[in-house]
This record gives sequence, structure tokens and C-alpha cells, in this order.
Amino acid sequence: MKKIIGTSLLFLGMAAFGQSKEDSIQFSKISTEILNNGKSYTELKDLTQNIGHRLSGSEAYEKAVKWAEQKLRDAGADKVWLQEVMVPVWTRGKESLQIRTADGKWKNMKMLSLGNSEGTGGKDVSGEIIVVKSIEEYDRLSADQVKDKIVFFNYPFSQSFVETFRGYSDAAKYRVTAASLVAKKGGKFAIVRSLSSAFDDVPHTGAMRYEDKISKIPAIAIGTTTADELETLLKGQKVTAKLNSNCGMKGEKLSHSVIGEITGKKDQSVIVVGGHLDSWDVGEGAHDDGAGIVQSIEVLRTFKKLGIKNNHTIRVVCFANEENGVKGGIQYGKTVKEKNEKHLFALESDAGGFAPRGIALEMNDEKRNQIKSWTSLFIPYGVYNFEGKYSGTDIYPLHDMGVPTAELVPDSQRYFDIHHTEEDTFDKVNRRELLLGAAAMAQIIYMIDKNW
Amino acid sequence: MKKIIGTSLLFLGMAAFGQSKEDSIQFSKISTEILNNGKSYTELKDLTQNIGHRLSGSEAYEKAVKWAEQKLRDAGADKVWLQEVMVPVWTRGKESLQIRTADGKWKNMKMLSLGNSEGTGGKDVSGEIIVVKSIEEYDRLSADQVKDKIVFFNYPFSQSFVETFRGYSDAAKYRVTAASLVAKKGGKFAIVRSLSSAFDDVPHTGAMRYEDKISKIPAIAIGTTTADELETLLKGQKVTAKLNSNCGMKGEKLSHSVIGEITGKKDQSVIVVGGHLDSWDVGEGAHDDGAGIVQSIEVLRTFKKLGIKNNHTIRVVCFANEENGVKGGIQYGKTVKEKNEKHLFALESDAGGFAPRGIALEMNDEKRNQIKSWTSLFIPYGVYNFEGKYSGTDIYPLHDMGVPTAELVPDSQRYFDIHHTEEDTFDKVNRRELLLGAAAMAQIIYMIDKNW
Repeated sequence: MKKIIGTSLLFLGMAAFGQSKEDSIQFSKISTEILNNGKSYTELKDLTQNIGHRLSGSEAYEKAVKWAEQKLRDAGADKVWLQEVMVPVWTRGKESLQIRTADGKWKNMKMLSLGNSEGTGGKDVSGEIIVVKSIEEYDRLSADQVKDKIVFFNYPFSQSFVETFRGYSDAAKYRVTAASLVAKKGGKFAIVRSLSSAFDDVPHTGAMRYEDKISKIPAIAIGTTTADELETLLKGQKVTAKLNSNCGMKGEKLSHSVIGEITGKKDQSVIVVGGHLDSWDVGEGAHDDGAGIVQSIEVLRTFKKLGIKNNHTIRVVCFANEENGVKGGIQYGKTVKEKNEKHLFALESDAGGFAPRGIALEMNDEKRNQIKSWTSLFIPYGVYNFEGKYSGTDIYPLHDMGVPTAELVPDSQRYFDIHHTEEDTFDKVNRRELLLGAAAMAQIIYMIDKNW
Repeated sequence: MKKIIGTSLLFLGMAAFGQSKEDSIQFSKISTEILNNGKSYTELKDLTQNIGHRLSGSEAYEKAVKWAEQKLRDAGADKVWLQEVMVPVWTRGKESLQIRTADGKWKNMKMLSLGNSEGTGGKDVSGEIIVVKSIEEYDRLSADQVKDKIVFFNYPFSQSFVETFRGYSDAAKYRVTAASLVAKKGGKFAIVRSLSSAFDDVPHTGAMRYEDKISKIPAIAIGTTTADELETLLKGQKVTAKLNSNCGMKGEKLSHSVIGEITGKKDQSVIVVGGHLDSWDVGEGAHDDGAGIVQSIEVLRTFKKLGIKNNHTIRVVCFANEENGVKGGIQYGKTVKEKNEKHLFALESDAGGFAPRGIALEMNDEKRNQIKSWTSLFIPYGVYNFEGKYSGTDIYPLHDMGVPTAELVPDSQRYFDIHHTEEDTFDKVNRRELLLGAAAMAQIIYMIDKNW
């Protein structure tokens, strides 16, 4: 298209109604500052390309801790510190999956062990594959039918939900529970179709959990087209799979969340804004959750740069270990309780660095309705949806202590194409989308700081 | 993030208020059909990768005409035909730009001649570069200062606007008018900074226009980082540029727009849904405007597949020559007038295949308010913005005849990173985003067909 439009200023005008002119001007200053001088995009490039993926317990994660500490200082934090936390150490090591059909030849299949899964200890484990479409279908199989088999759960990610998080939620139990389900009936290992909105051969990892007292057999994921091909192969012939993997839990290790703050001018009650510094051990952890980290630091930088005099302390928390334990979030909550620190509000960004559409709110109706009354201020920035009633994983411990919590709601269409994969890399992040997310975060923090 | 959310159904619930349950169910059927069985993504792959870019007047465009004809038949159109239209034939040919600084060496610079520009006739044209930041600054230069020079307009695309179309509109006059401005003062050719929201070395082409009776000198674009580097070079030293290009207008040619329709059950008044089949001669014309074409065909396919009994005729128009003449849109309007065909409504998709956020409406207040009263039906699909007061370029002739017109409003953050460049390729299109755009188009067409 080449036409030159005189876009209506109606939307901008709307913000002036029911809200003070001053807030509308401050929203514009925040957005203009971030869109023009924001550092989060170049910082994300640095984090993802110079450090890369950073599972807690890894050396890369410790580099990321030092990196975040420095970036918080650069952004102008009055105070920066590390919070100690014990994190699990899970490592992947070498892994391979091969399948053999009637032609007798072994073929490699792209796969990833699921996070927290035990491996085969470097030995080949093989057996016949049986496929089920659902847990209901699996439940109808007898232990005899499963014994010594490899069970392949080919439950599809539903395309019908407009918000892709609903498709993810719907299918997540397969990833989380498959191994123990199969172990209970004597199977050798579990294969799950990736929790992916895309149709490709890219496997998605992510956390699984073992049930207590159930044998810890391996669980792995394969891409969605790979899954469809495997299901087709299984029609009318015996298919054998052979897994060799070295992953497994290797105890615990002392690590850190990274915290920086600008002190409140009126009091020291705390407003938290954060994301998680760890990522899965594949790709670059760009959308999940490098984006949330650099956006949170951007909020602090913007307050300092614009000279906004914050009433309350605004604290950026870069949480450790969201992906496989949430130990950073739990430790943060514990420390708040021990120190009896008053927390006013906590906001997390952990749904990707895409163009923002809203902010989900987990709090009582009075506070929710107050925030919703600010909607017209946000509309000019494409932020209109305040209906979600959930918030970030790392701030659930705060929520459980009665703190009102929230999460940035970016557009969700692309997230589960690349989530927990080798494809979650910096080049998938758009500069303006990332920056607009940071602007929405700074805007709501500004309003909460001013009004609560 | 790994958390599993129970997303609120509130938004879905909202649709039931003030609208019939029936409409809400039909919206859901349309979205579910398109998200699960939509063909537009695979058809876009076919169009962009097997035909590629397709400037009107080119052989590729004629292939696209045949392709669109077939796709409309496949989608179930009751009637498919070609509409004759004379289109300009502009060709690029070989082109190169070199610059020489104080070190005396010629260096190549990435560039694209602007669309409709004349070239140098295959000869080297060189001269000293002078840079201006704006037309205002250029206007202060005397003809003596410009004579025999090459004028480089380095006006930046503003990052401050949230809707990137406003940044584009703000800067577009540089691309459109630079050549004639420079010619009037005796300069040799014009260089413009690309109309790009990105920071890279990718040049963006697009239409320029010559003023009557002004000498037709060449105009070219360079990437934004290239532009910044050139401005830096120009500080304190003489820089010479040498252009050699073969582009130019080569008369006219008979071509076609492609039209397909499903006949109205009640009457034959027409609802148009369309995009433009042509593209610039670089990249693959994926977002601009392959997306609009495949989405429009998807609307027709979905009506047939779901067995929706349309009251009025729903007509898909794949317009010829939007990019450098709008001859297809003009011819379509002329034919409507000649045949005295009643047109109820026209919708264009020509702002990229990104996740939809709204529909812009160009019509009287009564009709606008009626459509806005349907907002709650669209909210569950992420479509909330009905404030824009513009519509598509190809349907302006219909608008001028009094037909209410509209345009799909997708998220605009990524469009001007790749618009009119080698980078506008299929891999930049997300399947679900494209499909959701098609769903919003089918949904509004359904409402108009039912209520008007």
C-alpha cells in the first residue's frame, strides 16, 4: 500500500476524558522516551547473543547474574543486590532418538528431552512405540498393553482458541504428566507431541514432573510435523524407537536473583516489576524471558531519565529459576515475609516481547476496577484488555501474601511457535513491539505509584 | 513462562450482550473454521514463492492473474472473470550507486530506484552530494547551491507515533516529491532516506511522482543506517556519488484485475472484499499485498464452506496496479458506474498480514455507529479499534461514489520494517496472524450482509 493517511487523533483525544491531562502527558512522555531512546532492544541483543541461553545452575546463568547487576547500575538504580537462592541443577548432555520401521533401517528423529526428565544414563533404551491421541485413550489401555512399550502421546495443540495461552494450558498436562503415567503401567519412556502452535519439526522442551514413588522414566518431545509423520508410520506396521540420553537432575547449587531499585520519595513500600533471568537450555531465551528482563530494567531507566519522582520504591527483580523450580520467586516471597517489607503491587512480564494488548490483574475488585478506570489512558498505546485474572509465576508467592499482582499481556499469536525451542532467538523479537511493552509497563507502574 | 492459566471467559461472554447469540455463534464458527482449515497461509506461500514479486505490466503479474482466477474457482466462487485495465509499464533493470570520499576510492552503496523514476539511461551520472534534513532546509538553498549537485534528503521516520502509518505519512512526501524539488534547482538526482521504521541497510522503494513540465531526474532510496553513515561522511569532506540506472516508464499495457463472486440469495447488490494483486518488483510482495489477496479469497471460501446464505452478492476483487497507478481500482469504479451496479459496502486489506486490531470506517455517522455497536462481538478476536476514518486505496473510487468503505487494521509495528523491500517475504508472515485477519474480514462481511 502506498496511500498516505491522516490518521484520526480521536484515540489520543479519548485519553483526556475522565483522566487528568497530566497523566495523559506523562503517558506520552514515557512512550516517546522509550520508542526513541529505549535500550531494551540492544540490551536484549547483548544478553541473548553474548550470553545466550541460561538455565539456572549453569555457568551462563551466573554470567547473566553479573550482566543484570551491571545493567541495573547503568540504568540508574540507587541500590543493586543479589538475593541468594538454592536452585536445582538439571543438565541435558548428549541425546538422540532413532526409529526403525519395517525396512529395518534406523533413522534419526529431532527431539528434546523434557526439562527435569531423567535420561537413559547414556545407554540405549528401545522398544515398540504405541500411539494414543489422549490421556482418556491411554487410560483404557491395560498394564499388559503398555509394559515395555514406548508410549507416544499425540495430543494436538488446539488452533481454535484465539488466545494461544489457552491452547497451551489445554495441552500442557501431556508434557507435565506423561512420564509418570507411562511408568505406572511399566512402559519404558514417553514421547509427547510438542506444545506448539506451529506445524514444523521443532521440538519444544519445558518442565515435566515426576509423581512421588513412581519410577523416573525419560520423557521427550518431538515437533508437530514429526509427530504427524510418526503417527502415519504407526498405521499398519511395528515401529521401534531407541533413545539414548544423559540428562538428569544433579542436585542443587547456590545461585541468585538480581534486584535493583530506586528509592521512594514518600515511603519505602515496594512496587515490584520483573521477569525471569533464567531460560531453558536451548535457543537464546529471547522472548522467554530475556524480553521481560530488559523491559523491567527499561522501566527503571525511564523513571530516572524522565526525572519522575516516585512516591514508593520501584524495584526491579530478575528472578532465578522460573523454568524448573520457581525457587527465585519463592525465595523472594520468603524474604519479604521475613523482613516484613510492605509490597503495594507486583507486575511481571513473561509472555514474550510482542506488541502489548493489555494487562492481566489478579487482585480484589476495588483495585481491579480502579485500574480498569484508567483504560482510556492506555488505548492510544494499543493496550485495551484488562480482563485477564492471572499474573506471573514468579510473583504468585507475593499474590498468596495478599499483594495485588499483574502481568503484561502481549499479543500471543507467535509465542508458542518458538516457546522453549532452539528458535527462541533475538531475531524473532521486533524492536518496536518490545519497546511498546516496556512503555505499557512503565505507564501502569507510574499510575500505581501515583495513586496507591 | 511455564504456568498454566485458566483464562477468563469474560471476553467471550461480553459478546452475548447487546448482540444476538446467533451472531456470536456465527463469529465463533467463522474463526474456528479459518484457524483450523484456512487456506490463506499455504496459498500465500504458493503465490509468493512460486510466482514471487509481480509488478503490474510484468510477466509475473500475468501469472498471478491466472493464479488468482484458479484460486477463486477453487474457493467456490459462482462466477469468476477478468476485468480489463490499461496499466503503466515501469521496469527497473540494472542499477548501481557508488560514492567516493577523500580517500579517492569508489564504494558501492545498497540502493533502489524509486518506483516510476527515470534512470540515467545506462550512463554514469555523478556529482557532489549535499545533505539536508528537511524540505524546509532544502527550500533555503539557492539554485546556485543545488545546481549540478546530488541532493540527499535525510529526513527520519519518526519513532514517536504508536501507529507506524503516521510515521510513514509524515515522511512520505520526501519519497514522492524529492526528484522534482531537486530538478527545479538544477540538481542531478535525489537520494532519499528510506521510509523505514527499522535501522538497517535495506532500501525501500515505492511510488514517486514527477511534477508536470519539470525535468525527470532520477530518485533513489538508501537504507536508514546507510543514510546515517552517509550523513556522517559528509561532515567535513566532499563526497561524490555516481549513479548508473536503467529504470523508466515504458508505456502502457493491457492487463487485468481478477474478480470472483458468490451470488446473493436476496438481491444482487454487491459487497466487495479485496486487496491488490500487484506488488513492487522486489521481495515477494507477501505482506504488501499478497496477504490481502489470500485473506479476501478466504472470506469467500469460508462463506461457501460454512454454508452461510448470503443475502447480497459477495465479490472478491484482486485489484491490478495499486502500487504505481491505482488503475485497477479506478477501472473498477468506472465499470460499476457504467453498469449502474448497486454497491453496499467495500472492504480492503492492504496494511499487512499481521494480527488484526480493528477496522477503519469511511462512511456516514449512522452507518459508522451501527458498526461500532457490534464491537463487543469482535473483542474476543482481538479486534477493538473502529476509530480510524480511512479505507483502502483501491476502493477510494467507490468511496467517492458514496459507497461506505473500510479497511482491516492489523498491528502496524512490523510493517514498515519490510514494506517495499527485498525483505517483504513469506517467512515474515505468521500463519495465525494472517488467519485471524481473514476471520475479522469474514465476520464484518457477515454482519454487513445480514444487516444492510
